[in-house]
Amino acid sequence: MRCGVVGRGRPLPVKTVLLPPGTVRAHQAIPISPEELRHLRVRRAEDGEAVRVCDGHGAVAEGRLEYVGQSAVVHLGENEDVPAPTPLILAVGAGDRERFGWLVEKAAELGVTEIVPLDTVRARDASTRLRTGQVERLTRRAREALKQCAGAWAPVVHSPVPLETFLAGARPGQKWVADRAGPWPTGVLIDAPITVAVGPEGGFTADERDGLAAAGYRPMRLAASVLRFETAALVAAAHMSMQRRRGHDE
Amino acid sequence: MRCGVVGRGRPLPVKTVLLPPGTVRAHQAIPISPEELRHLRVRRAEDGEAVRVCDGHGAVAEGRLEYVGQSAVVHLGENEDVPAPTPLILAVGAGDRERFGWLVEKAAELGVTEIVPLDTVRARDASTRLRTGQVERLTRRAREALKQCAGAWAPVVHSPVPLETFLAGARPGQKWVADRAGPWPTGVLIDAPITVAVGPEGGFTADERDGLAAAGYRPMRLAASVLRFETAALVAAAHMSMQRRRGHDE
Repeated sequence: MRCGVVGRGRPLPVKTVLLPPGTVRAHQAIPISPEELRHLRVRRAEDGEAVRVCDGHGAVAEGRLEYVGQSAVVHLGENEDVPAPTPLILAVGAGDRERFGWLVEKAAELGVTEIVPLDTVRARDASTRLRTGQVERLTRRAREALKQCAGAWAPVVHSPVPLETFLAGARPGQKWVADRAGPWPTGVLIDAPITVAVGPEGGFTADERDGLAAAGYRPMRLAASVLRFETAALVAAAHMSMQRRRGHDE
Repeated sequence: MRCGVVGRGRPLPVKTVLLPPGTVRAHQAIPISPEELRHLRVRRAEDGEAVRVCDGHGAVAEGRLEYVGQSAVVHLGENEDVPAPTPLILAVGAGDRERFGWLVEKAAELGVTEIVPLDTVRARDASTRLRTGQVERLTRRAREALKQCAGAWAPVVHSPVPLETFLAGARPGQKWVADRAGPWPTGVLIDAPITVAVGPEGGFTADERDGLAAAGYRPMRLAASVLRFETAALVAAAHMSMQRRRGHDE
């Protein structure tokens, strides 16, 4: 249930306005981008309407819309800085871009903090694979998802990076790789960063799996059957995220 | 990893041919539908190629393609009847049809056995909501998903049904309803049917929640934030399915 005012027995969701990261300042009037303005018009936002404002980078505020000729501003009230969540990083074979886009939206809902498309041997087989030029669109989609899930932090979507380069970087915390031959995941750490690697359609090659093992990635099973890459990544994110939240609540 | 023959160090997935339920008979030559034929041509299936055949209803066989003029048949070898899985039923507010389509595909991958679109108060608000005329397309999509996940049983996709009608039917096993205010799910039964109810965008109304509670549905939390209806349904399916499989393996 979104925060909202109650009318005729149902909550009317407050509309969210996205501002560029770092621009949410209490008691200021901030111009709204043409794209956001278009979304607000489609959703029939009215002059003077109360909105939720967020920058996708932890800053959240209440605001009030004002249409000014063909453009609009939002007048901010008090703001709040939501602390950055513990990292939950998905590193996923840069497969089909449509499927990747869907994954980005779902990952934002599930509280993933970073998405790293991996350039792997079998990802290169897909003619529709995600490329660097499409990352900006995915970043927008990650931010848009915050409107639905009332989140404060959008995941950072990186440009595709070769697997070897990704593995060469130091990664603190727990590291997992989705692998049908692995055991079911146990002992998920609650307060440490978690990185999950997922292969593209066709999986990681034997060499790539060796590289992941050498870099400390533990294999984990996610389902009884073969999953598409974006399903595997989503199931992993949902599981990690649920284990973490349960650990905090129990 | 799909079953497949190995070439140049990687598995070449065997293509799957879908046949109508009940038509898989050992050592018969079965005609291939024009739609399946089109898919096989797109995937460049060759005359004489070995394929996997399944009917989405438990029957699986090995086969060999034969092009005959503008049509094709598949010559079947031995067949196998995979036992029906323990029911895992998703009853989900009949929201946006595109999102529902995604859900059906992912549910098939995760071993869901039935999908029941629910006609609820707030589902009726969505102009793009799933309607009865679109169920056939979803059934095809569920069956198509078996090609990727190498499954034997496609979920049955029902026509939208009013929530009250759905609740009036007897449902054995465990019943859950996705609810942000509920506790995290515990004590998932391994060998009993499981039904999970998920509201549409905006959720179930208070009356509908009362009806679900009266029918024995236990609330369960799935994530820290607000999820779209299709995400909630997938997270629930992934969790139930993982708990069940783990229970069997451990």
